[in-house]
Amino acid sequence: MNFELHPRLAEDTIFIHDLKLSKLLLMKDANFMWFILVPRTPFLREIIDLEEEGRIALLEEVCKLSEFLKKKYSPYKLNIANIGNMVEQLHVHIILRYKDDPLYPRPVWGHSLQEERYLKSEVELIAKTIRDEFITGP
Amino acid sequence: MNFELHPRLAEDTIFIHDLKLSKLLLMKDANFMWFILVPRTPFLREIIDLEEEGRIALLEEVCKLSEFLKKKYSPYKLNIANIGNMVEQLHVHIILRYKDDPLYPRPVWGHSLQEERYLKSEVELIAKTIRDEFITGP
Repeated sequence: MNFELHPRLAEDTIFIHDLKLSKLLLMKDANFMWFILVPRTPFLREIIDLEEEGRIALLEEVCKLSEFLKKKYSPYKLNIANIGNMVEQLHVHIILRYKDDPLYPRPVWGHSLQEERYLKSEVELIAKTIRDEFITGP
Repeated sequence: MNFELHPRLAEDTIFIHDLKLSKLLLMKDANFMWFILVPRTPFLREIIDLEEEGRIALLEEVCKLSEFLKKKYSPYKLNIANIGNMVEQLHVHIILRYKDDPLYPRPVWGHSLQEERYLKSEVELIAKTIRDEFITGP
């Protein structure tokens, strides 16, 4: 059986790239730079459903992306999490937090904000930057 | 400079054990089985502040504990996260979630619940179980 991205994740995100293990996605969210990694292995719910090799590959993808994002966008704090209470397909959130963002220091999950911090078109621009500089970059 | 546990983490948790890398703590919370791992290395804020060896050791401790907890307590979902917006010392949450817990499917952070799901004394009992069966167990 092939891997299929959960429809909710497909709807809520922009596809950036297929990394070695995971699909790299960007949430269509104009308040937070909010990335999601989804290992392309069917039927995973928990990190421990991965074999050891996959766990380490996931860690490496989380860390490589984190290092790029920290250098590029200087977040005050990264929030990294596998929650999966709503969408059970294994996915890891990587969210850039700033002291002046709309929810700091609260977590971002479970809020729906009325105002938006930046334009929807800027979300596409972020996706492009990641493609250009993280995926194909130096 | 030696590692010192952040006073907020010290106050909110019961100490269970010093694993190879991390301090294993249990939140004094009578609604959720809520564990925290704190790598005993000074001045860490992000997972990527650890060297590669430390990152893998942290992953292993998260996974070993997750596997034990899943087998022992059959949570519906594990929530695993490094947030650190309130307490910046690097720490990883491992929380057992059940469909009938007081907040499911919402995340547990940032809520203060009036009622408690089990007795405070049961929190101590959980800590004892982890010490007996996970730390010194088979």
